[in-house]
Amino acid sequence: MPSDPPLPIVRTVADLRARVAAWKGAGERIALVPTMGALHEGHLSLIRLARANAARVVASLFVNPTQFGPNEDFAAYPRDETRDAALLAKAGCDLLYAPGVTDMYPERFATAVTVRGVSEPLDGAARPGHFTGVATVVAKLLLQCGPDVAVFGEKDYQQLQVIRRLVVDLDIPVEVLGGPTARAQDGLALSSRNAYLTPEQRRAAPELYATLQAAAARLRAGEPVADVEVAARDRLMAAGFQRVDYVEARRPDDLARLGPGPIEGPARLLAAAVLGRARLIDNLEV
Amino acid sequence: MPSDPPLPIVRTVADLRARVAAWKGAGERIALVPTMGALHEGHLSLIRLARANAARVVASLFVNPTQFGPNEDFAAYPRDETRDAALLAKAGCDLLYAPGVTDMYPERFATAVTVRGVSEPLDGAARPGHFTGVATVVAKLLLQCGPDVAVFGEKDYQQLQVIRRLVVDLDIPVEVLGGPTARAQDGLALSSRNAYLTPEQRRAAPELYATLQAAAARLRAGEPVADVEVAARDRLMAAGFQRVDYVEARRPDDLARLGPGPIEGPARLLAAAVLGRARLIDNLEV
Repeated sequence: MPSDPPLPIVRTVADLRARVAAWKGAGERIALVPTMGALHEGHLSLIRLARANAARVVASLFVNPTQFGPNEDFAAYPRDETRDAALLAKAGCDLLYAPGVTDMYPERFATAVTVRGVSEPLDGAARPGHFTGVATVVAKLLLQCGPDVAVFGEKDYQQLQVIRRLVVDLDIPVEVLGGPTARAQDGLALSSRNAYLTPEQRRAAPELYATLQAAAARLRAGEPVADVEVAARDRLMAAGFQRVDYVEARRPDDLARLGPGPIEGPARLLAAAVLGRARLIDNLEV
Repeated sequence: MPSDPPLPIVRTVADLRARVAAWKGAGERIALVPTMGALHEGHLSLIRLARANAARVVASLFVNPTQFGPNEDFAAYPRDETRDAALLAKAGCDLLYAPGVTDMYPERFATAVTVRGVSEPLDGAARPGHFTGVATVVAKLLLQCGPDVAVFGEKDYQQLQVIRRLVVDLDIPVEVLGGPTARAQDGLALSSRNAYLTPEQRRAAPELYATLQAAAARLRAGEPVADVEVAARDRLMAAGFQRVDYVEARRPDDLARLGPGPIEGPARLLAAAVLGRARLIDNLEV
């Protein structure tokens, strides 16, 4: 069986734009899939979604320091470009854009993109500065590449809504697509950070998704939001999570609070909880 | 003598992009000249500079509320689109983009572009939030239009340097050009806000430029920065200005402070001072 051809890699904006301009000149539609590497089936499903929506797929690989807090796992974040490039090629990616930190943030870099509202609660409250780091790097990647469509995972649901907001607000000419969360057989959302779990923690981890499913069922049955949220938090703590940053039902588009009573329309359940060295997040449509 | 043909006006991003796409499809280079209207010879010189650098010139007219402070002159700012359109047509502009406030900032708008460093001193200190308003609207206008080159006046020197910074930092694919300050015969920098001056104030106003020229000469002669700045401030107050927000020599690119002694390299002198209802600004290369 022949091996896949090696994936072309560019590391500068000029090289990226030259490749993209050639494709656009040939009338081809371009998709960008931004990643931080450590790729798993979740990322590869986004590459396939991109393929289905564009003639050419660019993946970016950049572990963005500005979206990690000072006590977070930037240094420990798993990095293996060779492995990632092989997975991307196999999934149908055409080009890998892998800039260095000083290419993205040269010495006098001074600009930030901030999004009020949707970026403030939940992970915005638990990780100060995180979404400003995300919004700024995503704006840069979109403007560096100039894709017709950009694909992000629904696993990072709040991030997806922050990006939708900034793309509309700054008039970035790109269509944003969200890809469904890929899960292990036992329901655990695939995440690069699952690698931090011990075997025992890995067995407890699917309780996050199971808790959200149970909470969604209770909300659909008309139970009050406040009761469902408290029960979900208790269940996570009982399952062995050391800390629950949040488990909340929110309005789907702007993540505004819902009233404490039964839900009256669509909602999104979102949770973040710490298990060992891993901070896991997940979310579910209600 | 035949009158100039009327200038086409578009008011939505979709209409703007359709015009620009047609020109780009024909291989034409596009220039954008953002304005707040109330056009004078300074703006028209920027249109001519744009013409010299592109096949097609788009001017935008948008009095941006977010760059005015609560006690500033947003409501009073002079507006006359018909007159402005006629002047633009005569100067060689091809298209006027004049969006409404709710087109630019719809109800859920939540994003801001901020630039640290260069936006902080001088007008940044005197007008809190001003440069965030400027940076955000300029990013939007550039991404709405997608020009090859964008032209801004050196009269608003700090604004020009903020824009240069954000364009580099966010990787907006556009070349930024600064156009020299247009002046009245007596040296007063042309400004839409000169209309606020009484005849008597108008006679005093050229002292701003004269003060900067004298200060520049003293700096070139090796006099200490601190002495020159104090003397310039005293001269403006003696000339009848009610308040001097700043008159300072700064490093040209990032507007960092200089030492108090003689200048050791290039510098930019910048001043802002209030005369009657007008807050006048000016600047000079040293």
